[in-house]
Amino acid sequence: MTDTKVYFLDGGSLVLDGYHIFWNRGPGGEVRFPSYSILIEHAEGRFMIDTGYDYDHVMKVLPFEKPIQTKDQTMPGALKLIGLEPNDIDVVFNTHFHFDHCGGNKYFPYARKVCHRLEVPQACNPAPFEHLGYSDLSFSVEAAEARGLTDQLLPDATAANTAFEGVEGDFEIAKGVHMLFAPGHAVGNYAVMIELAHRRPMMLVLDAAYTRRSLETLCQSSFHIDPVKGIESMRRIKAYAEDHDAELFFSHDMESFETYRTGTQFYS
Amino acid sequence: MTDTKVYFLDGGSLVLDGYHIFWNRGPGGEVRFPSYSILIEHAEGRFMIDTGYDYDHVMKVLPFEKPIQTKDQTMPGALKLIGLEPNDIDVVFNTHFHFDHCGGNKYFPYARKVCHRLEVPQACNPAPFEHLGYSDLSFSVEAAEARGLTDQLLPDATAANTAFEGVEGDFEIAKGVHMLFAPGHAVGNYAVMIELAHRRPMMLVLDAAYTRRSLETLCQSSFHIDPVKGIESMRRIKAYAEDHDAELFFSHDMESFETYRTGTQFYS
Repeated sequence: MTDTKVYFLDGGSLVLDGYHIFWNRGPGGEVRFPSYSILIEHAEGRFMIDTGYDYDHVMKVLPFEKPIQTKDQTMPGALKLIGLEPNDIDVVFNTHFHFDHCGGNKYFPYARKVCHRLEVPQACNPAPFEHLGYSDLSFSVEAAEARGLTDQLLPDATAANTAFEGVEGDFEIAKGVHMLFAPGHAVGNYAVMIELAHRRPMMLVLDAAYTRRSLETLCQSSFHIDPVKGIESMRRIKAYAEDHDAELFFSHDMESFETYRTGTQFYS
Repeated sequence: MTDTKVYFLDGGSLVLDGYHIFWNRGPGGEVRFPSYSILIEHAEGRFMIDTGYDYDHVMKVLPFEKPIQTKDQTMPGALKLIGLEPNDIDVVFNTHFHFDHCGGNKYFPYARKVCHRLEVPQACNPAPFEHLGYSDLSFSVEAAEARGLTDQLLPDATAANTAFEGVEGDFEIAKGVHMLFAPGHAVGNYAVMIELAHRRPMMLVLDAAYTRRSLETLCQSSFHIDPVKGIESMRRIKAYAEDHDAELFFSHDMESFETYRTGTQFYS
């Protein structure tokens, strides 16, 4: 049995206003931030946490987010850098279905797929203010049909090969890979803590707090469905990380991301 | 019995970013908007709906909102314009306790006071992201003590003369004056519809939708505790106004406000 390895797959970057990143606080103005996926090589299989954004989708539906994505930053390209292809992935877990977390799902028709049980229904019928967040429906025939956006689906997509196992609450998706229910940003949002052999556990805060400043100041992003739960989730993740002496990693924090291992480098 | 009269008491103006007014949509940049209170002269008494902001409080706690308020735009000043003083008011109803809706409460120690039963508890213990909203505690000894801000209280404030009757749901505070529970912006937020003898009913949307564009596009303000309820409230108010052929009036919409009757002019 080999040690668990964690790869950050660089997925390029996007732009938001500072008021989107730091709800009501800002300051305003354009902020470029990273988007990435996480590959966990584990004795129980290869797990992909989220799948980044799709460049063409963003250019079509949200061009004001000014995507920058090289070929190596697409999902197939990032996997190729480490000698893998999509069919090598056993499990795809989506922390939620905002477009920048599920854009590459379509490359994994053969993987087992897991998400919170409320996330596919939410993508099918989002709140009015969530329509742009849940705008890439290529991950699910069910959601694309519900929204009348089946043109987003790849020809090989079927209800069966885009079906999800719905989960709820905290659970271990593999030994030492803890999925932590962290709602607020999205109805079924998750954070992830990974135990490793040679270093402190990694707490992937993901979209529960976009940046280090967000978590430190309890300032969630302006994209949320339940800000009270969002606060509770941030507090819980902070406490959980402290209790487990975990190192914090943030989802959309360029300053932090520039210090993370990417490409062929990994954590173990 | 005289006809019901409605006075808009101009309370000056404040500045926010466009991303505060139009949640996630903006555009960004400074927007100056009005703040006002509503006096209803009614056969059953004089009812004050909200009491505006206190200039000194804003300059001390939120100076970045750049208040502009003349003497005639203070609560006593605006009442004096129409020949009244604070002690002439029988009932103060607060739609919620954000600082720009309760700053003048302190001038009404003798009025009966009414609000949603959850609003005083919320002011005592707001969500972390609501602290600036619920920052003027001069309206309530209970809230000021709970927050350690008793220095905001006037010397004559007592628990008894700042006590509120807690209500819930829809009700008529006086014949033809309909208080419509519209949560989302605040936990106990209200809108108000007033029936008049000589014109269509007035729907005071208040902070359920700051501006006409907000209601038309279902874009609530970025200050909210439950955006899903915020959407439901906007839809309900729109439908209620249509059902009653009511004219819409908006709380923080300069373009609309400039067409409203203020000073000694009134609606009846």
